[in-house]
Amino acid sequence: MLSFTCDYTRGAHEKILKRLIETNMEQLPGYGNDHYCESAKEKIRRACECPDAEIYFLTGGTQTNATVIDSMLKKFEGVIAAKTGHINVHESGAVEYTGHKVLTLPGHEGKIRADELEAFLKTFWSDENREHMVFPGMVYISHPTEYGTLYTKTELEAVSSICHQYKIPLYLDGARLGYGLMSSCTDVTLPILSKLCDVFYIGGTKVGALCGEAVVFTHKNAPLHFTAMIKQQGALMAKGRLLGIQFDTLFTDDLYFTISRHAVKMAELLKKGFTEKGYSFFLDSPTNQQFIVLDNKKLEELQKKVAFEIWEKLDKEHTVVRFATSWGTKQEEIAELIALL
Amino acid sequence: MLSFTCDYTRGAHEKILKRLIETNMEQLPGYGNDHYCESAKEKIRRACECPDAEIYFLTGGTQTNATVIDSMLKKFEGVIAAKTGHINVHESGAVEYTGHKVLTLPGHEGKIRADELEAFLKTFWSDENREHMVFPGMVYISHPTEYGTLYTKTELEAVSSICHQYKIPLYLDGARLGYGLMSSCTDVTLPILSKLCDVFYIGGTKVGALCGEAVVFTHKNAPLHFTAMIKQQGALMAKGRLLGIQFDTLFTDDLYFTISRHAVKMAELLKKGFTEKGYSFFLDSPTNQQFIVLDNKKLEELQKKVAFEIWEKLDKEHTVVRFATSWGTKQEEIAELIALL
Amino acid sequence: MLSFTCDYTRGAHEKILKRLIETNMEQLPGYGNDHYCESAKEKIRRACECPDAEIYFLTGGTQTNATVIDSMLKKFEGVIAAKTGHINVHESGAVEYTGHKVLTLPGHEGKIRADELEAFLKTFWSDENREHMVFPGMVYISHPTEYGTLYTKTELEAVSSICHQYKIPLYLDGARLGYGLMSSCTDVTLPILSKLCDVFYIGGTKVGALCGEAVVFTHKNAPLHFTAMIKQQGALMAKGRLLGIQFDTLFTDDLYFTISRHAVKMAELLKKGFTEKGYSFFLDSPTNQQFIVLDNKKLEELQKKVAFEIWEKLDKEHTVVRFATSWGTKQEEIAELIALL
Amino acid sequence: MLSFTCDYTRGAHEKILKRLIETNMEQLPGYGNDHYCESAKEKIRRACECPDAEIYFLTGGTQTNATVIDSMLKKFEGVIAAKTGHINVHESGAVEYTGHKVLTLPGHEGKIRADELEAFLKTFWSDENREHMVFPGMVYISHPTEYGTLYTKTELEAVSSICHQYKIPLYLDGARLGYGLMSSCTDVTLPILSKLCDVFYIGGTKVGALCGEAVVFTHKNAPLHFTAMIKQQGALMAKGRLLGIQFDTLFTDDLYFTISRHAVKMAELLKKGFTEKGYSFFLDSPTNQQFIVLDNKKLEELQKKVAFEIWEKLDKEHTVVRFATSWGTKQEEIAELIALL
Repeated sequence: MLSFTCDYTRGAHEKILKRLIETNMEQLPGYGNDHYCESAKEKIRRACECPDAEIYFLTGGTQTNATVIDSMLKKFEGVIAAKTGHINVHESGAVEYTGHKVLTLPGHEGKIRADELEAFLKTFWSDENREHMVFPGMVYISHPTEYGTLYTKTELEAVSSICHQYKIPLYLDGARLGYGLMSSCTDVTLPILSKLCDVFYIGGTKVGALCGEAVVFTHKNAPLHFTAMIKQQGALMAKGRLLGIQFDTLFTDDLYFTISRHAVKMAELLKKGFTEKGYSFFLDSPTNQQFIVLDNKKLEELQKKVAFEIWEKLDKEHTVVRFATSWGTKQEEIAELIALL
Repeated sequence: MLSFTCDYTRGAHEKILKRLIETNMEQLPGYGNDHYCESAKEKIRRACECPDAEIYFLTGGTQTNATVIDSMLKKFEGVIAAKTGHINVHESGAVEYTGHKVLTLPGHEGKIRADELEAFLKTFWSDENREHMVFPGMVYISHPTEYGTLYTKTELEAVSSICHQYKIPLYLDGARLGYGLMSSCTDVTLPILSKLCDVFYIGGTKVGALCGEAVVFTHKNAPLHFTAMIKQQGALMAKGRLLGIQFDTLFTDDLYFTISRHAVKMAELLKKGFTEKGYSFFLDSPTNQQFIVLDNKKLEELQKKVAFEIWEKLDKEHTVVRFATSWGTKQEEIAELIALL
Repeated sequence: MLSFTCDYTRGAHEKILKRLIETNMEQLPGYGNDHYCESAKEKIRRACECPDAEIYFLTGGTQTNATVIDSMLKKFEGVIAAKTGHINVHESGAVEYTGHKVLTLPGHEGKIRADELEAFLKTFWSDENREHMVFPGMVYISHPTEYGTLYTKTELEAVSSICHQYKIPLYLDGARLGYGLMSSCTDVTLPILSKLCDVFYIGGTKVGALCGEAVVFTHKNAPLHFTAMIKQQGALMAKGRLLGIQFDTLFTDDLYFTISRHAVKMAELLKKGFTEKGYSFFLDSPTNQQFIVLDNKKLEELQKKVAFEIWEKLDKEHTVVRFATSWGTKQEEIAELIALL
Repeated sequence: MLSFTCDYTRGAHEKILKRLIETNMEQLPGYGNDHYCESAKEKIRRACECPDAEIYFLTGGTQTNATVIDSMLKKFEGVIAAKTGHINVHESGAVEYTGHKVLTLPGHEGKIRADELEAFLKTFWSDENREHMVFPGMVYISHPTEYGTLYTKTELEAVSSICHQYKIPLYLDGARLGYGLMSSCTDVTLPILSKLCDVFYIGGTKVGALCGEAVVFTHKNAPLHFTAMIKQQGALMAKGRLLGIQFDTLFTDDLYFTISRHAVKMAELLKKGFTEKGYSFFLDSPTNQQFIVLDNKKLEELQKKVAFEIWEKLDKEHTVVRFATSWGTKQEEIAELIALL
């Protein structure tokens, strides 16, 4: 059956598999100390136009979020996020498990607003009882958000500026970063992110890799002995080569960007198809995730022919569903889907 | 340069890579809910002769230890291990990070002794101040140990029996399990382990896989909502297929055992070679890790020609070093090494 | 200067101090194993009409909340509370520090609503992704709430019933419990609480003691080795006599209730005074905390003559302030205050 | 019955109780912000000859140890202690509960040795795998130790010097500090401690107070927002006056020292008595705890007449027991005891 349930339903881009095979019997040091990791880091630094970037490879998103957040927060600090942020909703309390509160701001189609962030910080710092409260120690945003939406450059600058005014780092969760950077509706680039964020990660798992996320500390600000903290979290891969080779391949000949652009194009075709058939959208997503409102009868009917994700109930008679494309989506799958509608 | 530094210097067995390619474009559910995971679990259950086994796939050893131990301990409990146990020495305090103490017993070539375990437990339970102490809540052993040694069936039975008498689970870290099971000096089998342990893991990372460890709860004793705890630990792989396909391949046609036996044979050849050349061993290891005593001059000389691991200083003039073989060691590499000695 | 800033500005009821002196040179076992603790527990059991109650004494509220909540939750669970709940706002993230998320419901003058609780639980249990979410493992309410309001018996029954339907314990934070039980507007009694809650605490610090909170597990449901967990939290007082003697005194001849009633009466006089002088209230509190709306000019003026707490800004020109009475408030202080208005 | 089980069997010194009564109805701010706390801090600074000292009051020893250690360690660090150290044995794993390992050195009558500390640190820092190990981030010593023994000034200087060489703080647990400082066999004073330690605490609970320990950071090195971390740990007493008034009294007219000297004198009498009656000592303690070797028959006989603590089995026929004196021990009690022997 046709499936658009999410962006990690397929294995890896064929170039990655090819490279894994070519390098397979080479004996390499473990734990990310191999030359493929080094090469991948150098290529990412160049793509970010950020020669000072300190880069680490981890395996998955929740692990990366917990490790980065815990390593950068002081014990009495929490992390600010949108109420709908992945760390607040869908990571089984991994951040709290490391001892830190997630402090929530309203989510606006998944995004936080700079003015609301500023008001929150101002209120906290003017509260005389703040020693009895959780100190805001970091800001977490996702880009694209969990709703597929994107911050504009101006919005990011505003959030970044407030973070720096209050001397707390800005952390960007880029699980689907490629799909955001290659959207036709964005003015945000990797070098811009590298300037505005203190740390972010470039998602591999959802963008062509078997697994792997590349954490980028943008101004030599990686926490002291970050590797020991990765190990402590159980996140240090023995065969670090698996991550190095994958990212080295993704950042060779712009593969990461090319396959991301493909996914976005597929999403645009899908969007066009749904629009032309008269479907309505829950919100306007410029990336690879599309949120569509279905009446429940149509939903049942469609579920028989194609797999997608139930997002949330809108009202008694309507449901929001998600269709996701990916690096691996084939154009004929989109055509087949549209024919079904 | 020739290298025997450890057993994870190469990628994966070629059959695994082949299978990853064959299945690559198949769309599968995430988080270990795919049919390859199911198939792998079924094959492992059969290999263990343990139809009740509940099996979960994680990515690496430290992660597996922390997740299993934390999920099975109550908050006021710690885990008993040999002083030399991996969790006590080389996991960056991952167990303590989850809030639990490692309670140590003397290590005897890496092994704990049943009588010392019993004495420890007896002393604890007869101490009137025990509410001020860490309760022993689990026993951790590694097999093969960090020194390549193996428990005999009788030794395991004794440890297991005491655990059950004191109603605490026995957990076996099998990072190198294949190399233990295929030793020519063991009377321990997978079905025996499944009977004597409450939980253990079958190591993939060091035995032919890119990554992956299979946790086996042997009598329907997986903690409630164990998946949520894996997720909370940041250890739930989105593309669980990567683990499922690898273990499915390893447990097809006895591949796991065949490649383990190969590694042990290579170690036996290496051992013979060193012996014949008059080298002495730190201890008698029947598995893939061999510990050799070198005088420091010889050490320096050898380091120029072959890579191996410095284990520890024996005295001012001698050093213990480790040579490890693996599923990927070639017989000509052994020959070349021996020629060098 | 006159002060109504909070209910812990004075030492302890004189009968408590007297008793401490009388018993001072008696040699007693530590850690709560003395006969005064036993006697206090027995008196509390009788006051609760709950012969099965298991009772423990801790030192303060935040400590009690963190210890009780962490000891009753499984690792993958969080605690549900009103957004305005003390554990969510004013305990420096003590609950998250133990690894658990606070899951918030809307606060209605400090209270949660049974229907919203039910909807939350229903939604959680019908979510297919719940293994990626924090499991609701307990409900926390405060009574009186942080806003001085009280649950009615009917409201408590409704919340309790839903908790039991979903098999999660109901925990009531009674930091100011006396002031709630002795309100003239309540139909809730200690025996009723003991029936409806799984665990609650009777606050001493704010009701006549130097320090101390009595945790009551109502149906032999104290977690196994709870004392070890109190110790682990650093909350086990060596001279447990200090807590035992205080609670023994408070529960002798109804002292706890008598002094609580006094505080409520003082609050009623204060309320009457403010009302008669034309002040308006932020909400209608039937307990010892009164929340008054002041225009900012009046606020400044009043601050020169009497101490009280700034609660929150209402709008640009008005501020909510809190006046608290306690067991130690003297009637002439109220008279003096009213004269000032 | 006569009792020498420990040094916290009685309430508080009468001067403390008197002062609590005198100040009882004064309205004071909470959480340690009252003028009694300020006054106590100033007096302690003077007694320490350490005008830069930053001082905080906590309630008990385990709480103090966990709060101080966790607040000063980085996430990847552990604390070094003697194997027999209180934090390693009798605090229910409170340090591990905060996420940190206790790294043990051999105990020599409760003390660590500077040369063994140096060897440990040197080995750690020369280990190439140290990113996989727990970093030593602090040294914990107790003085007097759990065996009543004392470091000499020279020994303390040696330990302190190594700590500073390796840039890790030295923390001294002074639960019984008074009894150490007033020993007739010590050359260590409070000003000396203040120079050699980075942080230490002056124990109140065991030396005349109902509860309370005064933490002294000796060179303006209190961790940022330490109060928030005390609160987070559940260790911030609402009525901080209880701690302030007690320490203010203890440090008025040398009360702390006078009552400590009394306890040591009582111990010396006791020691003389046991010696003259031909008893043998487990070790030579110059403080208030005396460890005596009894044959098991004598033990049973003695237990009928006097209470003391069973410390540990020495061999099949002998047991080590502890007799403790305190600020509250009466000379006639010693006489009575000796008459019994």
